[in-house]
Amino acid sequence: MKVGIIGAGSIGLLFAAYLSRVFDVTVYTRSQEQAAEINQNGVLLLNGMDKAVAKVGALSITDWQGLEDFTIIAVKQYQLVSIIERFDQLPSVPKNLFFLQNGMGHLKLLNQMKAANLFVGSVEHGALRENSYTVRHNGESTTNVAVYKGDSGVLQWFTTAVSRVFPMTIKDDYLAMLEKKLIANAMINPLTAILRVNNGALLENPFYYKVLQSLYREITFILNIENPENCWEQVITICQKTAANRSSMLKDIEARRPTEVDAILGYLIEEANKQGKTPFQLETLYYLIKGIERQGEVIS
Amino acid sequence: MKVGIIGAGSIGLLFAAYLSRVFDVTVYTRSQEQAAEINQNGVLLLNGMDKAVAKVGALSITDWQGLEDFTIIAVKQYQLVSIIERFDQLPSVPKNLFFLQNGMGHLKLLNQMKAANLFVGSVEHGALRENSYTVRHNGESTTNVAVYKGDSGVLQWFTTAVSRVFPMTIKDDYLAMLEKKLIANAMINPLTAILRVNNGALLENPFYYKVLQSLYREITFILNIENPENCWEQVITICQKTAANRSSMLKDIEARRPTEVDAILGYLIEEANKQGKTPFQLETLYYLIKGIERQGEVIS
Repeated sequence: MKVGIIGAGSIGLLFAAYLSRVFDVTVYTRSQEQAAEINQNGVLLLNGMDKAVAKVGALSITDWQGLEDFTIIAVKQYQLVSIIERFDQLPSVPKNLFFLQNGMGHLKLLNQMKAANLFVGSVEHGALRENSYTVRHNGESTTNVAVYKGDSGVLQWFTTAVSRVFPMTIKDDYLAMLEKKLIANAMINPLTAILRVNNGALLENPFYYKVLQSLYREITFILNIENPENCWEQVITICQKTAANRSSMLKDIEARRPTEVDAILGYLIEEANKQGKTPFQLETLYYLIKGIERQGEVIS
Repeated sequence: MKVGIIGAGSIGLLFAAYLSRVFDVTVYTRSQEQAAEINQNGVLLLNGMDKAVAKVGALSITDWQGLEDFTIIAVKQYQLVSIIERFDQLPSVPKNLFFLQNGMGHLKLLNQMKAANLFVGSVEHGALRENSYTVRHNGESTTNVAVYKGDSGVLQWFTTAVSRVFPMTIKDDYLAMLEKKLIANAMINPLTAILRVNNGALLENPFYYKVLQSLYREITFILNIENPENCWEQVITICQKTAANRSSMLKDIEARRPTEVDAILGYLIEEANKQGKTPFQLETLYYLIKGIERQGEVIS
């Protein structure tokens, strides 16, 4: 089976490295240069002391024809609009699309997609792109997957085939699945990016822990989560499992890339405003991150 | 006239350097070593390209007898309790005490002092202690002074004598004077310390400016300021005048000293709680600063 992966950041490369063990994988990159490097070197997967080269085809995104049987979209949420524009110009409509974006802001964009089957996922792995064709898998976990629209049989078949080499966990309720990840992201990402600390510091430092707790109250109030205490342990577990990691938002800030703050905090602030709630803490964090992004631009 | 200055940080040294031009000044230091260095070198005042040595006597705080005619207390708010304990053991009660602490948390401590005249001040100068006897005056401005309890004639006489060498501005209303400084401190100090930026960045960066605005709304609501828009310009002016400065809280964080977060944000949070208001933004900033302080301790 042919699998397309749109985006060759840390998650795109991680999926390409593993999925190429069971499928014929083509990665679509933003630049011609990166495609050439992947074609020349394959995708290099580092995991602890292990090192493996995966044979993966690569093309520039401008050469995407949508001909693969299954297509994974692994770009950031803010890059999704340009992918959807490209999608509308494809000669044939891809059947199966699988979206791996953080946050929930991308759901409203999905409704514009004409593909028969739409799946969403939340990645719980830790991965770091070391260069244009090398990814370090520094936190082994799973990818939660769920049907957003269409046929669950296809997803069932896909995850069964993949699970031999790369764990996947099917979830019934895509909304609950994405919300859980969103809550964790909204708490861990901005705080670690502002404080420039590893995820674990938020648990170890009793004052940061206080901020986590009050943020959690604000977020679960916005999302109208019933019995929020049930979900708290899950968020803490994510923080524990990724204690040694630097969050994606911190990495983006350090690399002076745009962050996913709009997809994560922006989405929650919008939800709050719709309901007439004032998200005091989220707004403060949102503008601090936007300001840090801006500062990076001014300095660089 | 004999003047005592308790505390030889940046503000204590700054006052010692200028006031020694008109008074006989003794500085009381935390350590014997610092007293010895000041006795040997005088206080060295740097101002732009200018350099002046002030002849100032120095003693360890343990040698304080309270014999001076006028005593300036220039320690941080969190050091005040130990000064008051010492005060209670003095052989004679000092007549005139002048307090220069940030925030307003020290006011309730002042009520315990038996001195006849209690004055409070808010320093608008920029000063940086470069070593145990050297201070750089890097922002010339004024010291606002007001009567907290007692005889305004003494304060009038003192400021007139001092003003020839070091500007002082008498204010009628100590509460309004300290509140204005508190508002500016509560906005500028934590944000600059968390973001590690100069004061001016809060005005230049449009996203940080948004945070300033919403913080201002929360603080003026807690302090029940009528017509808050009248006071906004004053706060912005402080930020503009000190644009190139690093705030005292940022300097404390960088030097891994305790900050004045309890005197500044802690005071406001307590005021809010008394009134049944929830200071969401201030609490977030408070715990972030407490966490950064703790992190500094753990690392160092």
